[in-house]
Amino acid sequence: MGHDFPGDSTIWDDASALDKAHVFHSWSAQGKVHPFEIVSGHGSTLVDGQGREYLDFTSQLVNVNIGYQHPRVIEGIVEQARLMCTLGPGYANLARGRAASLVAKRAPEGFSKVFFTNAGADANENAIRAARQFTGRDKIISSYRSYHGNTGAAIAATGDWRRKPNDYSRGHVHVMTPYLYRSPFFAESEDEECARALEHFEQVLRFEGPDTVAAVLLESIPGTAGVMVPPDGYFEGVREITRKYGILMITDEVMAGFGRTGEWFALDAFDYEPDLITFAKGCNSGYVPAGGVIFSDEVAHAFDERVFPGGLTYSGHPLAMASIVAAQEAMEEEGIVANARRVGEKVIGPGLEDLKLRHRHIGDVRGKGVMWAVEMVSSRDDKHMLDAATMAAIHTKAKESGLLVDVHDNRIHVVPPCVITDDEAKAGIAILDEVLTATGC
Amino acid sequence: MGHDFPGDSTIWDDASALDKAHVFHSWSAQGKVHPFEIVSGHGSTLVDGQGREYLDFTSQLVNVNIGYQHPRVIEGIVEQARLMCTLGPGYANLARGRAASLVAKRAPEGFSKVFFTNAGADANENAIRAARQFTGRDKIISSYRSYHGNTGAAIAATGDWRRKPNDYSRGHVHVMTPYLYRSPFFAESEDEECARALEHFEQVLRFEGPDTVAAVLLESIPGTAGVMVPPDGYFEGVREITRKYGILMITDEVMAGFGRTGEWFALDAFDYEPDLITFAKGCNSGYVPAGGVIFSDEVAHAFDERVFPGGLTYSGHPLAMASIVAAQEAMEEEGIVANARRVGEKVIGPGLEDLKLRHRHIGDVRGKGVMWAVEMVSSRDDKHMLDAATMAAIHTKAKESGLLVDVHDNRIHVVPPCVITDDEAKAGIAILDEVLTATGC
Repeated sequence: MGHDFPGDSTIWDDASALDKAHVFHSWSAQGKVHPFEIVSGHGSTLVDGQGREYLDFTSQLVNVNIGYQHPRVIEGIVEQARLMCTLGPGYANLARGRAASLVAKRAPEGFSKVFFTNAGADANENAIRAARQFTGRDKIISSYRSYHGNTGAAIAATGDWRRKPNDYSRGHVHVMTPYLYRSPFFAESEDEECARALEHFEQVLRFEGPDTVAAVLLESIPGTAGVMVPPDGYFEGVREITRKYGILMITDEVMAGFGRTGEWFALDAFDYEPDLITFAKGCNSGYVPAGGVIFSDEVAHAFDERVFPGGLTYSGHPLAMASIVAAQEAMEEEGIVANARRVGEKVIGPGLEDLKLRHRHIGDVRGKGVMWAVEMVSSRDDKHMLDAATMAAIHTKAKESGLLVDVHDNRIHVVPPCVITDDEAKAGIAILDEVLTATGC
Repeated sequence: MGHDFPGDSTIWDDASALDKAHVFHSWSAQGKVHPFEIVSGHGSTLVDGQGREYLDFTSQLVNVNIGYQHPRVIEGIVEQARLMCTLGPGYANLARGRAASLVAKRAPEGFSKVFFTNAGADANENAIRAARQFTGRDKIISSYRSYHGNTGAAIAATGDWRRKPNDYSRGHVHVMTPYLYRSPFFAESEDEECARALEHFEQVLRFEGPDTVAAVLLESIPGTAGVMVPPDGYFEGVREITRKYGILMITDEVMAGFGRTGEWFALDAFDYEPDLITFAKGCNSGYVPAGGVIFSDEVAHAFDERVFPGGLTYSGHPLAMASIVAAQEAMEEEGIVANARRVGEKVIGPGLEDLKLRHRHIGDVRGKGVMWAVEMVSSRDDKHMLDAATMAAIHTKAKESGLLVDVHDNRIHVVPPCVITDDEAKAGIAILDEVLTATGC
């Protein structure tokens, strides 16, 4: 079968026309997608189809931690492409072993093994699978304010034996987690928020029946949901409760990991150790699709004699592995994590706080490293979310001024690459300042 | 936090030692994984850590259709790596548009748009999502003899709005599908198998309630489950029944697509059109992780004004897209699909049938193109599956003789790259012949 698209010969060099004709887009109404062509980039800058440059405060989907077109990562990919592009997960391969070693090294002591996936969603899938297999229980507790990936049906559709150990039809419970600016616990201080969040967590756990719960899955800092840095003591408290009931703890470092918060893992700023850590994005800045699960030795050893019932064709894909090795080495040698921390402390944090002093519609500024949210409200007294039209205008005007920002609901997310310079960060915040003035904020 | 692995400095160049220390493997008991290092490959040949060559009858996980290290695909990747490695799904990009155009072109008329994913599992996830959203129903009917991917929980764990439209907690029904050699319908001819399989399908559908069923999801040729080429009329019959009840039809071409069966899509050999087609592996032979869903225009247009509630960071990843463009162009210009068909008809099919004449433990030989299964039985009368120890011995002895084959249960899968030459196919079958003799088959 097959057919020609009569138009394609004439639009073969037109990215926007091809996009409109043939690309179905993520999380979108397709008729409302207006193709915006990006051709290349460097550092924290993107270049569009007309050669115009944009300062990028988004890092795409908060994944380009090392910046665009880092020469060392490109060369790592090129070298591996010329040696061996693809290899099934059953074999050993040098790039794969090295990538696993470098990733595991960033986890706490006692985490040695890495299961590689294609991205964050299937990293969480496999961490959930490991927890369910390890405990023999099915429920997973996570936060209402969270995003863990877009999958949820392929293994249930599967008919062969691989479905059977994965057949958890019940199994997802959501709790409230700390968010002091709009406290779901009616708290007035961080300490109160933390204590109440823990009490709420344990209450839900008891009502659900702790012996039905396999794991709690939490982003170390909820990302898309609004960059709510958890209060000190929250993760430590969750860890204590989960240990009491024999429940595993999965920390999702997909967005917050590998430098984003000025730490290798965001969990490094807290004093606890989970059982499983999931990662993706920042591990290689998305230069090749990759993610994975870092296993604590205790959970890993449970599968020494027993089959782990999960897998995928591109687990430990050589090109992805080579890009992880190059990215990890470059991030360490170039001090990129320390840069993210410094820029956050010296420039972005103070810069956004300064905007808040001068723009009355900014309700809250929060974050660390290069992971910040600016929450916009119609007034600071009622905290009503600023209207969608103004939020859209902020997005559009920033772009017209050469600055790309993420807008989620009533929030502007400021999440540039970890390599951003002080001058670039200052320049971006200055544009944001003008845009907020121009949009009456 | 983080820690050093004292051993890693000494094992940094030792793929097997790194693998044992740090890599957690798919679908395996970790203590039973014996690392076998592969360094490189070319065409249908793999090269191990000692420089020894193996003829590959596996194509890894049946994905390397174009063979190893095809120079044109490598150069496509290298060129794109130097231009732009990573870009979020919201933008237009030339490689992305071109890849979408070339993939959609292989589908029937009236399929214009492609939603890109990282692999086959999330391709099926998103096809299922589209069918559920399109119909407002939740159940998916698939075959017991099937494999559709390893995912199933991440979106249910998610707390934000993206969970809500995806919250299908019920929803998977399995049916028997045609398998004449061990007919689940007690049939004695292809026609009888086909008619009874259709009657069974419609009966299950009626018991489930057709107005609760969103879609039927079927591999065009069940792959891992045993390469059961459906009888003529089966898909046409399923299509007729699904139309009668307003149910969508999803054809899974992840393993069978892009040349594997000697057709661009395996469905080209039948006379029906599905609503959604999923693909991965062969689209770029896995050189970069990629997969996707091809939408019929009717289903695509349903999401013109309404948000499609699915997406992923690496949808339409530039490196993956460049590798699809290069692979598609090379496959067309070099006649690789025709080669697969010819080798299957002239060499592999007759060669395996000849083995069957001389090896009494071969119960059945079936397949087409470069997608074949040889079913081993203890005797042709009782059709009992040949014991696992002998199957393992076949696998090991073949490897020792320089031939890699897939063994699944009591079957040897012969699934070499589509570029395999007649001489290579003959040489591999000759090795298999010796191995079957040596193992008493």
